[in-house]
Amino acid sequence: MEQMRVFGIDPGSTATGFAVVERSGGRFRLLDAGVIRTKSGMPVPERLAIIHAGLAVRLGEHEVDCVAIEAIFRHRSSESALRLGQARGVALLAAAQAGHEVHEYNAMTVKKTVGGHGRAGKPEVARVVGRLVGVDVKLASDASDAAAIAITHLMHSPFQRRMAAR
Amino acid sequence: MEQMRVFGIDPGSTATGFAVVERSGGRFRLLDAGVIRTKSGMPVPERLAIIHAGLAVRLGEHEVDCVAIEAIFRHRSSESALRLGQARGVALLAAAQAGHEVHEYNAMTVKKTVGGHGRAGKPEVARVVGRLVGVDVKLASDASDAAAIAITHLMHSPFQRRMAAR
Repeated sequence: MEQMRVFGIDPGSTATGFAVVERSGGRFRLLDAGVIRTKSGMPVPERLAIIHAGLAVRLGEHEVDCVAIEAIFRHRSSESALRLGQARGVALLAAAQAGHEVHEYNAMTVKKTVGGHGRAGKPEVARVVGRLVGVDVKLASDASDAAAIAITHLMHSPFQRRMAAR
Repeated sequence: MEQMRVFGIDPGSTATGFAVVERSGGRFRLLDAGVIRTKSGMPVPERLAIIHAGLAVRLGEHEVDCVAIEAIFRHRSSESALRLGQARGVALLAAAQAGHEVHEYNAMTVKKTVGGHGRAGKPEVARVVGRLVGVDVKLASDASDAAAIAITHLMHSPFQRRMAAR
């Protein structure tokens, strides 16, 4: 049975969600998920170091096939885009340093793939994520978003296309 | 005689300038300067890894007192702000990992401090940088900008204020 493991990241300067999702056959399993939080009063370079180290440790703990991350909306303000870019930069760096390819999916694709339609709200996506990975406890919002991104890649990857062609 | 060494960074996704400037008494000296370039066809995570590693190596080579970096304009588009943010994020990370404090100066302050006025053009700033550090060869534009940021910190630091009070 084919198996694939994806490390999903939802980067942010105050909260970076991550999730490790495995697909084997038609089944999804959540192997790890959490949120790396940083205090807003802390200097930005130290906050970025916490995000980077937190992701590097988890990427080292799990043998994953690749990393999936959200592509960024264009409509954010340039200030928030810069802040988000900094967090996203250290996340992409951690992925590269762990030797993984990174795949990007925009929010619309994640909503369509996991929530069923492009206007699916966060609670709707979170509910489907919980059902797919068989988790009863409510995941933190950023961890759930990271899992949704990982699931999106598992649904769009060549592996998935091979599965569907059987 | 008091001495201070600053590592200046001008981050960018295709070209990241760096410069190590020392001030002892009223004299400035350029200890190192260069540009870390990445190819636009390369995956972004690998480009960020090159920028990060390039800065980490230079930060390890030089014993500096702190890092200075340009604060970002608000008027950039959100797309370019995101790209710049990613490069800036790994630069700030390298500084934090090397144990250095980071000081930010906006372009206006750099122009005023080094070029003499807020509307000073790049060639004007580059000319003053070359004169201050006593370099006859023309520095690459991004390296010169990084040196200008380092000089700005050397002019604004408590050390400079102590110097002026003598």
